[in-house]
Amino acid sequence: MLVSHGSDAEPLGVGVVGAGYWGPNLVRNLQASFDFNLNWLCDLDEGRAQRVVGRQGRVRTTSRLQDLLDDTLTQAVVVATPAQAHYDVAMAALQAGKHVLVEKPLASAFVQAAQLVSTANDLNRVLMCDHTYCYTPAVTKIRELVRGGVLGDIQFVDSVRINLGLVQRDVDVLWDLAPHDLSILDFVLPDGCRPQAVAAHGADPIGAGHACVAYLTLQLAGGAIAHAHVNWLSPTKVRTMMIGGSKRTLLWDDLNPSQRLSVFDRGVDLSDPNSIGADERREALISYRSGDMVAPALPEREALAGVSAEFAEAIRAGRSPMTDGSAGLRVLDVLEAASRSLEYRGAVVPLRSG
Amino acid sequence: MLVSHGSDAEPLGVGVVGAGYWGPNLVRNLQASFDFNLNWLCDLDEGRAQRVVGRQGRVRTTSRLQDLLDDTLTQAVVVATPAQAHYDVAMAALQAGKHVLVEKPLASAFVQAAQLVSTANDLNRVLMCDHTYCYTPAVTKIRELVRGGVLGDIQFVDSVRINLGLVQRDVDVLWDLAPHDLSILDFVLPDGCRPQAVAAHGADPIGAGHACVAYLTLQLAGGAIAHAHVNWLSPTKVRTMMIGGSKRTLLWDDLNPSQRLSVFDRGVDLSDPNSIGADERREALISYRSGDMVAPALPEREALAGVSAEFAEAIRAGRSPMTDGSAGLRVLDVLEAASRSLEYRGAVVPLRSG
Amino acid sequence: MLVSHGSDAEPLGVGVVGAGYWGPNLVRNLQASFDFNLNWLCDLDEGRAQRVVGRQGRVRTTSRLQDLLDDTLTQAVVVATPAQAHYDVAMAALQAGKHVLVEKPLASAFVQAAQLVSTANDLNRVLMCDHTYCYTPAVTKIRELVRGGVLGDIQFVDSVRINLGLVQRDVDVLWDLAPHDLSILDFVLPDGCRPQAVAAHGADPIGAGHACVAYLTLQLAGGAIAHAHVNWLSPTKVRTMMIGGSKRTLLWDDLNPSQRLSVFDRGVDLSDPNSIGADERREALISYRSGDMVAPALPEREALAGVSAEFAEAIRAGRSPMTDGSAGLRVLDVLEAASRSLEYRGAVVPLRSG
Amino acid sequence: MLVSHGSDAEPLGVGVVGAGYWGPNLVRNLQASFDFNLNWLCDLDEGRAQRVVGRQGRVRTTSRLQDLLDDTLTQAVVVATPAQAHYDVAMAALQAGKHVLVEKPLASAFVQAAQLVSTANDLNRVLMCDHTYCYTPAVTKIRELVRGGVLGDIQFVDSVRINLGLVQRDVDVLWDLAPHDLSILDFVLPDGCRPQAVAAHGADPIGAGHACVAYLTLQLAGGAIAHAHVNWLSPTKVRTMMIGGSKRTLLWDDLNPSQRLSVFDRGVDLSDPNSIGADERREALISYRSGDMVAPALPEREALAGVSAEFAEAIRAGRSPMTDGSAGLRVLDVLEAASRSLEYRGAVVPLRSG
Repeated sequence: MLVSHGSDAEPLGVGVVGAGYWGPNLVRNLQASFDFNLNWLCDLDEGRAQRVVGRQGRVRTTSRLQDLLDDTLTQAVVVATPAQAHYDVAMAALQAGKHVLVEKPLASAFVQAAQLVSTANDLNRVLMCDHTYCYTPAVTKIRELVRGGVLGDIQFVDSVRINLGLVQRDVDVLWDLAPHDLSILDFVLPDGCRPQAVAAHGADPIGAGHACVAYLTLQLAGGAIAHAHVNWLSPTKVRTMMIGGSKRTLLWDDLNPSQRLSVFDRGVDLSDPNSIGADERREALISYRSGDMVAPALPEREALAGVSAEFAEAIRAGRSPMTDGSAGLRVLDVLEAASRSLEYRGAVVPLRSG
Repeated sequence: MLVSHGSDAEPLGVGVVGAGYWGPNLVRNLQASFDFNLNWLCDLDEGRAQRVVGRQGRVRTTSRLQDLLDDTLTQAVVVATPAQAHYDVAMAALQAGKHVLVEKPLASAFVQAAQLVSTANDLNRVLMCDHTYCYTPAVTKIRELVRGGVLGDIQFVDSVRINLGLVQRDVDVLWDLAPHDLSILDFVLPDGCRPQAVAAHGADPIGAGHACVAYLTLQLAGGAIAHAHVNWLSPTKVRTMMIGGSKRTLLWDDLNPSQRLSVFDRGVDLSDPNSIGADERREALISYRSGDMVAPALPEREALAGVSAEFAEAIRAGRSPMTDGSAGLRVLDVLEAASRSLEYRGAVVPLRSG
Repeated sequence: MLVSHGSDAEPLGVGVVGAGYWGPNLVRNLQASFDFNLNWLCDLDEGRAQRVVGRQGRVRTTSRLQDLLDDTLTQAVVVATPAQAHYDVAMAALQAGKHVLVEKPLASAFVQAAQLVSTANDLNRVLMCDHTYCYTPAVTKIRELVRGGVLGDIQFVDSVRINLGLVQRDVDVLWDLAPHDLSILDFVLPDGCRPQAVAAHGADPIGAGHACVAYLTLQLAGGAIAHAHVNWLSPTKVRTMMIGGSKRTLLWDDLNPSQRLSVFDRGVDLSDPNSIGADERREALISYRSGDMVAPALPEREALAGVSAEFAEAIRAGRSPMTDGSAGLRVLDVLEAASRSLEYRGAVVPLRSG
Repeated sequence: MLVSHGSDAEPLGVGVVGAGYWGPNLVRNLQASFDFNLNWLCDLDEGRAQRVVGRQGRVRTTSRLQDLLDDTLTQAVVVATPAQAHYDVAMAALQAGKHVLVEKPLASAFVQAAQLVSTANDLNRVLMCDHTYCYTPAVTKIRELVRGGVLGDIQFVDSVRINLGLVQRDVDVLWDLAPHDLSILDFVLPDGCRPQAVAAHGADPIGAGHACVAYLTLQLAGGAIAHAHVNWLSPTKVRTMMIGGSKRTLLWDDLNPSQRLSVFDRGVDLSDPNSIGADERREALISYRSGDMVAPALPEREALAGVSAEFAEAIRAGRSPMTDGSAGLRVLDVLEAASRSLEYRGAVVPLRSG
């Protein structure tokens, strides 16, 4: 099933703030959901809001955020404004007692995001981050395989997200593309593998004013390494992530619809690491696995439908959503550290949350 | 043409030192060459040498290096011993007035390699490094395209060399695999793009005693960046190198025999970098090229045949070979700096030759 | 440009008949077009028609075809009913003086289609077949390359259209999938290469009541051969067409967005076919070309926009559209002959239009 | 294990006849085998034979077949002459009481091959066909999967064997390439799926004097269909075979070393074919499976080593080899029928052995 029917539960009243790039997708999705009644679409340019919802519909439009906040029939707010406004809108909504779903990044700075998280905790409201990718069938399956121990201990992660991309005006390639990799990593890796420190290397060979090519290296708790290559200048589009484990290694190729996930029973086994040094013994102790590869079947599902279903369930159950405010906070932590590392020509920067 | 016929030139007398892993390939290749007479195969284990050349042949075998050095009919020596012995054998051969071809790495340390280079210069002998990859049709073509200006100014290089590899006893994955990437980069990039500094990140998640996964970042003169991913733990084998330029971008996929090289007329153009800041103007100045892709036809040629042909031509012409001692020296410079960077958890280490 | 602006020309009044599977796409497309005013959407189930156009719009809905035919502001009719109704609706529209665009197949039988074509000719109306694929950037480019002589003389065509397909109730896999291959062939091949005869082989291994796997072989004028493999039972989806020519060979892989078209300068040349028999001479006369491959850049364009633009231009210019009634007729000719061949276990059946 | 050690069994004396294209591979392979002592290499051009075995070796060379036949230490003969000579040499060897391994095709005509088979039976000698492909790890695994019932009932087979091939002087593309597909089919398909009739379509667009592009359709017992596309004019090389079954479907891509075999748990299920006609019921009865895909690991093994091991074991056990004379006979039956079908423009020709 694509959308939870919320059984006989009353639909939740919801308002969307921001009718720009991503807003219309959220509107369409919430209108299709049985969990929500979309009451409001708010945009500083009310005309744009009207064009999005159409004339006939039962969705009211406004340019004043206060209209949503005052509406007691609206329990939830979705923030799809430009990033700089995320903090103000989300904070106002929380303080008005609303549950809040925020587009990524949670805020434009770590400290602001931290305040949103603590406010949500204090007021006991749901604060969720729209890490859409995490609700795709592929990433959901990856989380299941990794956390279910199918891969064994995580040894390395290598992610590539490159294509001939729109050179952004305000943000470099790290802030444009890496949030996807980082939110996915945060979602699938077990807590024992959290990033501890980050190093970033970048280049701006076209003179765009900030990095157009960047490499991100994360030191993970437990000695594993994660690496991401993000690039606006590649003529070919690549979206792959390899997750190496002590039992199996997983390859995700998001551009190969006929085989998005491949799980390899191949690898190197070292029976007893203590034996290092005694070369003869060690040679004997190294062995190579070369077993079958399995490409698990994936269900068809629209990621956004999963996002709104999770948001609704978290509100109803009064629990924390899978991609909660803290997840968004951890992603910002890495991004800010990465920017500092770029400044200092690749210096390793420890994470606050590390 | 696979092998230069050296026209009516006398074949050069040559001896090979080392009948181990790579030696037999060199023997087979030199026996097929019209440029050389293979006089000697030397190995501490003379029996092994005999098995390699066979009983009937006209190639003499010995366990004493001096036999080669004393033979006035032998003008050239090929060093295929273990790396630790490269320096001693090559130095002795140079001082005996021989021209020398050395397997990679040129020596096990930069300082020793530097002495070989200066000795060769002083004695006016040819010192060549066997960077075999550089003599494959694909890399030869890449050098031609890059140096011929077809790609424009080099903006970035991204190399991936991963597979389920033999975990080496004495060297980490950087010293095992990266010499290929580095010698190829040294070969194809114009002098204006030499590496200035290097940072390396690695991990040893299986407890092998040294890095099994590593990432190498090179800062190139002129602001470009080069990056290499080397990995012994990947279940899939990948051998790709992307070279991004201001005019075109090249993708080399060495495991795709039907399309090893792809040259894309795609990219981002920024008419005037000075205009940064004036966003409106800049937007107008950014444009995206999306032209044809061309996969150039490549000749069939065995790389080793190219190596021996180049060695012979350099000796006859008294010129420096394309992959001379200095090339091997620059590769060692990067490898040693990379090892230091690994030690210091990714610190950026400037190069001696930078 | 995606849609022709028809300069200062008056938009043409148009009505769509059939609000089922494909109708909504046509409605959306015609509403976006500057060439047409969509006046009517007609469906036996008027409620369905209303749901498609929405309540507010200026498009009138009806369940009576006559309403469209009587409307003098409606010069054109688009027929998107089930195939069995194509003939009746299209004939009535033509006789009412309308220009007509019909979904494929033009009619459910050759004879009916032939009557539509002659009626359109007699009444001097435009009769167009919606062979949508022909208006994709890839097929448009293929036609240009083939007809422009870039490939030289056509030697063979091999098409594969297989996937785990919906097993149709009323038609076998040939009538379900082959119309795409046949309409594309009709569109790209020069007139000198028209099909002369057809043989079809099929199997129904699952007991569906008609062929689920089929192979179609076309003998083309000039001695070339065309072949199509259509299959509902393949676990993998393939959409490829190879067109071999005396100068170049083209490969179209519609599922590879990064390289849909590849044009190979490779092939076998036989300088003088007359020399066959004289083996020695022949050997000398056979040569193999192995040149570059070029993947031409393709524009972004929605095929349906091209369909409506061509329909409008044909009406305005009073000319025959690129995929006119005769094209649809030729496709039906092959399909009916193929069905006969299937009946007679693969017997070669000549074409009426051959 | 690459070569069977034949335990403590005496090696079998063997002679090879024919030192041309394939002979040297057989010589190298038999010299490496523990099952055989290679005593003789016979070629009309004895000098060529000498060059193949080298001067020093213990293999005797001759230009007279009789020398082998008279040698009581030689129990087995391998026939690697041109096809026209297969019959004479093999018959002479059998009548001299030798066990015989013949290159494909078993003979140049069905009737001759039939005589070889009956002679071998009468004299109780092993007659084996060198269908090398059948001894590759991939095909061995396919046979295991198909015959083991993993795929369920076989529904269709589709094979593609195309590339820019050497245009042969004496044989068309069917006789050059299809023997591979046919011997593999004969090897992997259960006896209940034997070919009953064949239709072939071809073209000679370059004027080579015989078909350079051909399509072969086989009607299999039980209603399944098999099809092969062989082509000398394709710029790209393809080697794929899909075998569709009621439970699973297998895809073999021999040019994809990292994933040669893929076994898909996907397909169409029709619970009860009798229900055809009752559309409503039927719809209910059609269901689509979309399960995991498994790429089984394959061992490393040289096919020729498997051929000689099987030959030796069959001789020692006095049993029929896996690819015996009858297999070669069935392949010839299809090839001759295909040639007749080509003559008669694609007419369906029943098989003798059908």
